Amino acid sequence: MQRKSFDKMQCPIARALERVGEWWSILILRDAFYGMTRFDEFQKSLDIAPNMLTKRLTALVEAQLLERRQYSEKPPRYEYILTERGRDFRPVLWALLEWGNNNFFPEGHSVDLVNRKTGKVAKPVVVDSVSGKPMTAEDFGPKAGPAATEGVRRRLAFGAAKRLHPELKPDFSIDKVTS
Amino acid sequence: MQRKSFDKMQCPIARALERVGEWWSILILRDAFYGMTRFDEFQKSLDIAPNMLTKRLTALVEAQLLERRQYSEKPPRYEYILTERGRDFRPVLWALLEWGNNNFFPEGHSVDLVNRKTGKVAKPVVVDSVSGKPMTAEDFGPKAGPAATEGVRRRLAFGAAKRLHPELKPDFSIDKVTS
Repeated sequence: MQRKSFDKMQCPIARALERVGEWWSILILRDAFYGMTRFDEFQKSLDIAPNMLTKRLTALVEAQLLERRQYSEKPPRYEYILTERGRDFRPVLWALLEWGNNNFFPEGHSVDLVNRKTGKVAKPVVVDSVSGKPMTAEDFGPKAGPAATEGVRRRLAFGAAKRLHPELKPDFSIDKVTS
Repeated sequence: MQRKSFDKMQCPIARALERVGEWWSILILRDAFYGMTRFDEFQKSLDIAPNMLTKRLTALVEAQLLERRQYSEKPPRYEYILTERGRDFRPVLWALLEWGNNNFFPEGHSVDLVNRKTGKVAKPVVVDSVSGKPMTAEDFGPKAGPAATEGVRRRLAFGAAKRLHPELKPDFSIDKVTS
């Protein structure tokens, strides 16, 4: 089954998913943040079929989230190291972890994020570092950037209209909004 | 192709992905945040096959991220509304958007997050609301929670050892670390 490519889409979330939206990719990145670098480490941690792991690692290398480095010549062996772009993904993992903890652990948490100095459990929230304000839906929202296409502008306009008039069906169509 | 279930895994990221890790699910949630509620709105926005959209919407309803509500009796028509759990997903989307913008838009941004009051482009960062500190990898990290299984503890121990001794292969195995 071949997935449609999200890469032609102009949405930054779609382009992000083009790199990490395949099954396993995000868990491989998680393990890379745990310090795993070698094929057998990922394989044992994830209990994943080797051919699938090869495929996903190759895709993550192509997307420049991991770098493949040889660490042994005889036999030839490679390890996979997070690139800067890969390390940049950490806030997404932490937001996912927080959401997972808050919603799917009726039996209690298995992993918490803690402040290393105080040992206290952290509560991750997204804040705008420009204004210092928590990014609530009331105070922050999406806006067309300089490279927005017609389709993106239409989706944003739809959102803005719905926000002002939640009960109204906007009078423009969302037709051909993908661009 | 049947995907392995991540739900038996004890990791909060894996459990989160169990709900949103399928192709399209996250883009459907994105559109729900844009105010879309109806099948045809999602369909036109995403240019997705109707049977696939039905499948993904049903899964999101089962995972209690969307609620299905009838809005017309004749003909019977339904809309899909974000639940509290679904709305809780917003920080993940914003972190993904920021990562996408920073890494995959050489031509300039098509969507920015802005402060509605000032109109300024926001810079989302993850902050610990308990201590008020930005959640850097230096100051924050994962720790076993009360419900951690043996496998989770082993992965955490691996990460802690690698952090202290990045060049060393830890002397314990990551064997059967999935639990």
